[in-house]
Amino acid sequence: MIQLSRSDIQNLVSIDPGTIAAIRDAYIAISDGRANVPPVGYLGFPDKNGDCHIKYGYIAGDPVFVVKIAAGFYDNPSKGLPSSNGIIVAVSAETGQVIATLNDEGWLTDLRTGIGGAVATFALCRDDAETFSIVGTGTQARFQARAMAALAGRPITINVWGRARAKAEAFQADLAAIGLAVHVADDLEAMCRTSDVIVTTTPSAHPLIKADWIREGTHITAMGADAPGKRELAVDLVARANVLAVDLARQCLEHGEFAGAFAAGLIRTEDCIELGLILSGRARGRKAASQITIADLTGVATQDIAMARTVLERVAGLDIRT
Amino acid sequence: MIQLSRSDIQNLVSIDPGTIAAIRDAYIAISDGRANVPPVGYLGFPDKNGDCHIKYGYIAGDPVFVVKIAAGFYDNPSKGLPSSNGIIVAVSAETGQVIATLNDEGWLTDLRTGIGGAVATFALCRDDAETFSIVGTGTQARFQARAMAALAGRPITINVWGRARAKAEAFQADLAAIGLAVHVADDLEAMCRTSDVIVTTTPSAHPLIKADWIREGTHITAMGADAPGKRELAVDLVARANVLAVDLARQCLEHGEFAGAFAAGLIRTEDCIELGLILSGRARGRKAASQITIADLTGVATQDIAMARTVLERVAGLDIRT
Repeated sequence: MIQLSRSDIQNLVSIDPGTIAAIRDAYIAISDGRANVPPVGYLGFPDKNGDCHIKYGYIAGDPVFVVKIAAGFYDNPSKGLPSSNGIIVAVSAETGQVIATLNDEGWLTDLRTGIGGAVATFALCRDDAETFSIVGTGTQARFQARAMAALAGRPITINVWGRARAKAEAFQADLAAIGLAVHVADDLEAMCRTSDVIVTTTPSAHPLIKADWIREGTHITAMGADAPGKRELAVDLVARANVLAVDLARQCLEHGEFAGAFAAGLIRTEDCIELGLILSGRARGRKAASQITIADLTGVATQDIAMARTVLERVAGLDIRT
Repeated sequence: MIQLSRSDIQNLVSIDPGTIAAIRDAYIAISDGRANVPPVGYLGFPDKNGDCHIKYGYIAGDPVFVVKIAAGFYDNPSKGLPSSNGIIVAVSAETGQVIATLNDEGWLTDLRTGIGGAVATFALCRDDAETFSIVGTGTQARFQARAMAALAGRPITINVWGRARAKAEAFQADLAAIGLAVHVADDLEAMCRTSDVIVTTTPSAHPLIKADWIREGTHITAMGADAPGKRELAVDLVARANVLAVDLARQCLEHGEFAGAFAAGLIRTEDCIELGLILSGRARGRKAASQITIADLTGVATQDIAMARTVLERVAGLDIRT
């Protein structure tokens, strides 16, 4: 059995053509019937302000299936520990033998979420989009910025806004250190009013972005809401959008960004288009330059499968098909 | 993070007073509200004759919670590989940090299942039971025999019956090698008619044991049926029993030994008593020496939690409470 540490994994994969292709395929697999993705397992630890999600699934034809254990204990920082922990177990889909444990400490989730956001963004934004704005200044905001820059294939303008300007400036400095210029925005509303693309990455429990701040032709990728009670966009903004894309409808309408508008009866299940259908060309996303499009991503085990498979394919000497 | 191999684990735990106490408590935890045991996760691989069960849960007050990945790929023996594979991941219930992976290759499951069967057997059989008979000659039959001998606390007679006499003789030889005398029975019916206790351990899909073979006062522990379609006892035997004990009612009535009688309307949910209630003295099991009692065990994550915790408590220098 192979046991890979976070640094082992970081030496094998990054935002690169192979991982981007794997994540695109992970979304398509949800929509074309190849994915077997049971509902996410959950254990709550309310006394400890913690929870654990168990995502598992299989993509038909893959040599491995994957179980990801992801724990979040939100009082950890006060003990000097990271909030997020976890491990990914890759098992042979031929024999059931445990092939590898990936002790990535949540890094692969961050990476696949970043790539996934950018894949959704470029599947739905206007081809001439120039101004890309990020709401939030945390780890995922950084991954979104890096993945957008990598997938754009052309120079783009990147803005960032956060509640605390100091954190936005730290974000700016971190990205400057890897050669990526970012503008710090002082005002969220003004930033939104002048953006072609907005990517939200906060754990907010109340809407940050109002419907009338968004101009025609804007695309929004909503990454933050991944549990009941989280929300970054006003429900009337969701209701106003022309195109609503989801990674997995049952998750997005239950506990994603679209859950509020769905619960209020403002949108219906059939208003949502799976991202995988758009990526595979079986459904249209944006139909006009003037449309407002929103992608709501809650995370699906196929992304974890795709990343684990890609990591293992790059381990020298390991043949995961046997 | 601690990584323990099968042999590491075998050096730490066995059928011993600590593991027996832990398994008893694991059943009680189900019945007294301490256990959080979500439904078992499942992935099927019909093309490969394989499946994977993901059992996870938490016992309130425990320092760790556990996720067990157990794969069964039933064509493996033809490739020279074992059918069962798996891994247990123990995670801190204080911080979410992954404490350990237990690469037990299914051995802890065999051990906890063996101890669990014997705990149920001695909770329900007559105090003066002398003749203990095992149906089946595989791995779990061996664990049941060893655990019964350990828990009996007195000399008992052990019989074994299998479809293939050669396998029963190999069973006899294996147990003789560890000092345990076993009689090989030629005829299943005759063995059943003269037994005080019968423990069934086969993967049979049709009933092996008929209602009129069982004399008054007999206890049966049914270990084999753990998936839809498996059955070792005739439904009218289940219906005839005076006491029906279960580890977890929702599992036993859905895919355990009692599922057939339940589906046929011969028994009701309220006819089943949780083993944990009997072990904790909150419900009576056997009420008279003449009663026929049956325990149906399908396996619950609390057993896996109890075993993983016990293993980790015995790792020198590891404090799992931090």
